[in-house]
Amino acid sequence: MKKVKVGVIGMGRIGKIHFGNLKHQINDAEVVAISDPFYQDPTEFPNLSPEELIQHPEIEAVIICSPTDTHAAYISMCAEAGKHIFCEKPHDLSISRVIETLKEVNAAGVELMLGFNRRFDPNFQKIRSLVQEGKIGDVHLLKITSRDPAPPSLAYLKSSGGMFLDMTIHDFDMARYIMGKEVVEVFAKAGAFVSDDVKEAGDIDTAVITLKFDDGSMAVIDNCRKAVYGYDQRLEVFGSKGMAKVDNNKPDTHILYNDLGAHGALPLNFFMERYTMSYQIELNRFIEAVLQKKPMPVSGVDGLKAMMIALAAKQSVVINRPVAIVEFSEDKIDQLIPEQIIS
Amino acid sequence: MKKVKVGVIGMGRIGKIHFGNLKHQINDAEVVAISDPFYQDPTEFPNLSPEELIQHPEIEAVIICSPTDTHAAYISMCAEAGKHIFCEKPHDLSISRVIETLKEVNAAGVELMLGFNRRFDPNFQKIRSLVQEGKIGDVHLLKITSRDPAPPSLAYLKSSGGMFLDMTIHDFDMARYIMGKEVVEVFAKAGAFVSDDVKEAGDIDTAVITLKFDDGSMAVIDNCRKAVYGYDQRLEVFGSKGMAKVDNNKPDTHILYNDLGAHGALPLNFFMERYTMSYQIELNRFIEAVLQKKPMPVSGVDGLKAMMIALAAKQSVVINRPVAIVEFSEDKIDQLIPEQIIS
Amino acid sequence: MKKVKVGVIGMGRIGKIHFGNLKHQINDAEVVAISDPFYQDPTEFPNLSPEELIQHPEIEAVIICSPTDTHAAYISMCAEAGKHIFCEKPHDLSISRVIETLKEVNAAGVELMLGFNRRFDPNFQKIRSLVQEGKIGDVHLLKITSRDPAPPSLAYLKSSGGMFLDMTIHDFDMARYIMGKEVVEVFAKAGAFVSDDVKEAGDIDTAVITLKFDDGSMAVIDNCRKAVYGYDQRLEVFGSKGMAKVDNNKPDTHILYNDLGAHGALPLNFFMERYTMSYQIELNRFIEAVLQKKPMPVSGVDGLKAMMIALAAKQSVVINRPVAIVEFSEDKIDQLIPEQIIS
Amino acid sequence: MKKVKVGVIGMGRIGKIHFGNLKHQINDAEVVAISDPFYQDPTEFPNLSPEELIQHPEIEAVIICSPTDTHAAYISMCAEAGKHIFCEKPHDLSISRVIETLKEVNAAGVELMLGFNRRFDPNFQKIRSLVQEGKIGDVHLLKITSRDPAPPSLAYLKSSGGMFLDMTIHDFDMARYIMGKEVVEVFAKAGAFVSDDVKEAGDIDTAVITLKFDDGSMAVIDNCRKAVYGYDQRLEVFGSKGMAKVDNNKPDTHILYNDLGAHGALPLNFFMERYTMSYQIELNRFIEAVLQKKPMPVSGVDGLKAMMIALAAKQSVVINRPVAIVEFSEDKIDQLIPEQIIS
Repeated sequence: MKKVKVGVIGMGRIGKIHFGNLKHQINDAEVVAISDPFYQDPTEFPNLSPEELIQHPEIEAVIICSPTDTHAAYISMCAEAGKHIFCEKPHDLSISRVIETLKEVNAAGVELMLGFNRRFDPNFQKIRSLVQEGKIGDVHLLKITSRDPAPPSLAYLKSSGGMFLDMTIHDFDMARYIMGKEVVEVFAKAGAFVSDDVKEAGDIDTAVITLKFDDGSMAVIDNCRKAVYGYDQRLEVFGSKGMAKVDNNKPDTHILYNDLGAHGALPLNFFMERYTMSYQIELNRFIEAVLQKKPMPVSGVDGLKAMMIALAAKQSVVINRPVAIVEFSEDKIDQLIPEQIIS
Repeated sequence: MKKVKVGVIGMGRIGKIHFGNLKHQINDAEVVAISDPFYQDPTEFPNLSPEELIQHPEIEAVIICSPTDTHAAYISMCAEAGKHIFCEKPHDLSISRVIETLKEVNAAGVELMLGFNRRFDPNFQKIRSLVQEGKIGDVHLLKITSRDPAPPSLAYLKSSGGMFLDMTIHDFDMARYIMGKEVVEVFAKAGAFVSDDVKEAGDIDTAVITLKFDDGSMAVIDNCRKAVYGYDQRLEVFGSKGMAKVDNNKPDTHILYNDLGAHGALPLNFFMERYTMSYQIELNRFIEAVLQKKPMPVSGVDGLKAMMIALAAKQSVVINRPVAIVEFSEDKIDQLIPEQIIS
Repeated sequence: MKKVKVGVIGMGRIGKIHFGNLKHQINDAEVVAISDPFYQDPTEFPNLSPEELIQHPEIEAVIICSPTDTHAAYISMCAEAGKHIFCEKPHDLSISRVIETLKEVNAAGVELMLGFNRRFDPNFQKIRSLVQEGKIGDVHLLKITSRDPAPPSLAYLKSSGGMFLDMTIHDFDMARYIMGKEVVEVFAKAGAFVSDDVKEAGDIDTAVITLKFDDGSMAVIDNCRKAVYGYDQRLEVFGSKGMAKVDNNKPDTHILYNDLGAHGALPLNFFMERYTMSYQIELNRFIEAVLQKKPMPVSGVDGLKAMMIALAAKQSVVINRPVAIVEFSEDKIDQLIPEQIIS
Repeated sequence: MKKVKVGVIGMGRIGKIHFGNLKHQINDAEVVAISDPFYQDPTEFPNLSPEELIQHPEIEAVIICSPTDTHAAYISMCAEAGKHIFCEKPHDLSISRVIETLKEVNAAGVELMLGFNRRFDPNFQKIRSLVQEGKIGDVHLLKITSRDPAPPSLAYLKSSGGMFLDMTIHDFDMARYIMGKEVVEVFAKAGAFVSDDVKEAGDIDTAVITLKFDDGSMAVIDNCRKAVYGYDQRLEVFGSKGMAKVDNNKPDTHILYNDLGAHGALPLNFFMERYTMSYQIELNRFIEAVLQKKPMPVSGVDGLKAMMIALAAKQSVVINRPVAIVEFSEDKIDQLIPEQIIS
């Protein structure tokens, strides 16, 4: 049976996850080459420059895991070379650059999938299934808790685009994914409570964000860059027929009862452990979509929309009032994006 | 040992709870009379008019459980008659009337306790203890979920003052109680999703409210008038040293596993079952404070402050922006309240 | 409405529970007198001798909470005086004495209820309901865990009749109650692991008991006199259609997550807290049965049967092999008990 | 770095699990050949006869996953050929045949590991760690629940050696592993309640087994061949310092609350899903032990001892009394096993 031949650009933390899954877990893919100037480990695959990899005649699909500021350029190259693209989030920190490259991808007729891996997590997928099967009825409220165990380095923070574009963007995408509706307004309150690095980077580390969807229903997201008890990833939906929630995954199910109390394990920590399964399923679904010429499970426009929510949240904190997404799309975006992309 | 002699005005749903507790659970109180023109059950106690009850020479303390629009008048009478007061929430729907009666109470030197019973719930008290013992560290975020099993009648809704003053006011008080800080700003998003009666009453039934405290920390409250699975009362605090949460109480702990899944009990439904214990402790603490001349565990100013948050939330929904509490106190309140009350 | 007039003999720990419930929680009962030579607290009720109380012309029902070695004598007196009887377990430590007094009770036409309070616990009642509604299908196995927080005093141990007659007897009754079947064989392994007092009393403190029912299905009970984490009272049923279990009740539902783990509350400790509700329901059901002339919810024969299982368990430990209940009934009991009692 | 070259005999259900792990998860192993006359899937590895595979000069270690009645023969061949052995349980159904081959293995100086994969499950390992770290204190009681979702085929049942040797043997090994003590006596009650095939095979399908350890402490195991709610694998230890238990693993953590109740997922079903991780760790530990010449984590004597407990349990059901392990070892085994094996 035919396999999709792929190249992986960027063999950092997330690149290695995808590389390992492509080698061991995904039967329909075959790694042809990697690209990472700093990658030292012995490997049976040629380590090419990004340009060489993208141009490699055998490679049909490119997995982009390099630093964010290189994403747009590699996407453009891939589009030009007619290669399908899996790109880690975020696409780019500039919304106009995102739109530009989406138009190139569109024109070239290649497929682009954004790496919102949490869509493929079994817990969140269960909640989405319950919503789609009507088990929750009309969904009035979605609640997402997303807290990291520790803030990233100052260097990372400075180039991250800020917490909303770097961290909350997963939750913004999850909100659209679970609800199956579009966000029309954002209100965010935030502060820098847990990290001096965050303050120095001019960023925030703790936030509560209220989303309003097009039918008036709501979501509330709470984030923090530092939870001493680990990686906290929970979600709840509430509607006319009921409520469903998912809790954190733990390394084991033990409870120890002694004279001091009842004691259990902390959540899996960090994303590599917590989302092991979602990364595998994600890339499998990308390869499957390429092979079977099916639509990508996460599109470039999904990435764009999450980004617009993030930018609105950012502005909401500054001006301390709700910001409508249309404020962005009217002023800056509508003239830039052809109909087929926005839909 | 001396007992506090009390009279109960209003023998409706909540009046009966307090009456029962006074008779059976509270050793230091003795019921002398009740007052309810519609009360038919046989009782060994005289059923007086409110005025007669308040003036009754033996009665030292009055438990006011009559309709909201009578509260302020009976409080004034009690103050004038030198009787201590336990009053169900809300004090009154007019903030200036509240302030006026608080000044009378103050001047008369009697004690007034507001019926925020949830402060005495073992779950919420455990969370408050953890916060006060420093187990949570600096508290960054408080989350309260409060959903009723079904909306009240249209008649009730029309005289309730709206969801924020009637239902969320418990959560506003809880936010101040758990955090031990003052709320400085409120943002509320809301809709009428679950009840035509609510729409007809011009009220809302579903809301997400973000509170900002004086140190920048935050709370988020979500409410709904109708949760088909019952009375949902949960709370979570998150801070620099950890996170703690309490779940709903259930009638039993069973889980049934069959070929369809794992099935457990729904939350206790409704407040009389869920808050049985808190009502007992609440009134015990009132009687104890009267007897031992200790400060009331919930003051009239606590009621006033929760009310100001509720009014700010109401306005926030209308103008769709955050509302500072100071907007109320500067314009309307400061000149009305003497220092000793506001503190 | 008519009330049942009662007297309470024995105002120790358990006597006070029943007395409090009779005064405050049970509308259809009225305490007329108590009897306890050592009871010092002020009370509005006359403190009579047991004989005076039982003979008191107004008293219809007697609640026997005195030491075990007095139970049989008071039951006999009550039977002679035509008074209904609620007696704390165990009835007596001598099976022939039990049978003798049951015959007297029977002949006198008075009612006798044994104080197996756990039958009225909401958790265990839920399990029994699930069994009776057929939700478990054919029940193959019942599992009971019953562990005390600490062993009783040496004095208590010496007069207790041993762990099986004193502590496990509750579980033997529960096994019959949940399964709705009779036990035909017992195998018990036991040791004295946790208490020197237990060893000195020649008793055991830790045991695993396997019961076989008349249809071949089984139960397994594990007991210990000392669980450092508190009072452990759990139960599980397993059958052809599923499994159901109940967990311990806790004082609150909190979980605290910090850098060391997730921490929750210990079980309610001890029986007065854990079984508060079951004691109330139990005595209510006794009063109701007296008033409405309905069969007692726990009969004297129920007490006798639990006792026979306990004696078989005791022998099983000694001879280290399974003991059939019929070994007791054939040798010693059948000739003593008339048909109408054994059924 | 040097890899251990292995061959896999038997590519059935369990063989495929080990084969997949050897290929993808275990860096230090390299598959050289497989052996299965019925294996049809395309593979890059030669499919040899068992004899050829065992004699293959490159192969250092053989993974035996063929039917039970071939195990002993292949173990002998491996010993003779100087190959290390990983053998699925059970070693053989004849205890004398087991002892005979263990002596051959011993004499040949090769290593043998038995496939008690549950020792490597993160839940059970956590419990063992707690025991070994002294967190439970002196362990008085171990409880194991092990229920399969459905009985195997009649054909399988007939050649399985009976439930104790086929299914409970995992629990007997787990009891020794968790407690770190030797079993000295077994009492088992059992019945055929859930399967006509089981009855036809002359086997049992439901059992309660009580174990006594050399220090008097106890374990109780309950088994059933059919739990309609899935694969039930739970364990609890109780001792002087506390109690710890592990629950089933579930595919997700969702709870759905609707008007009918609270509903969650069933346990992972069946062993391939539940014990995915334990199979990976198990074989990794075997390869590591071969490579580093360390003692095997599960020895042939561990297999022998579990088997002796199983045989004692089988006899206990027949004669309905406890059976001492020494009854087996004295009569039949001691003269057969040299000291170095029994230790």
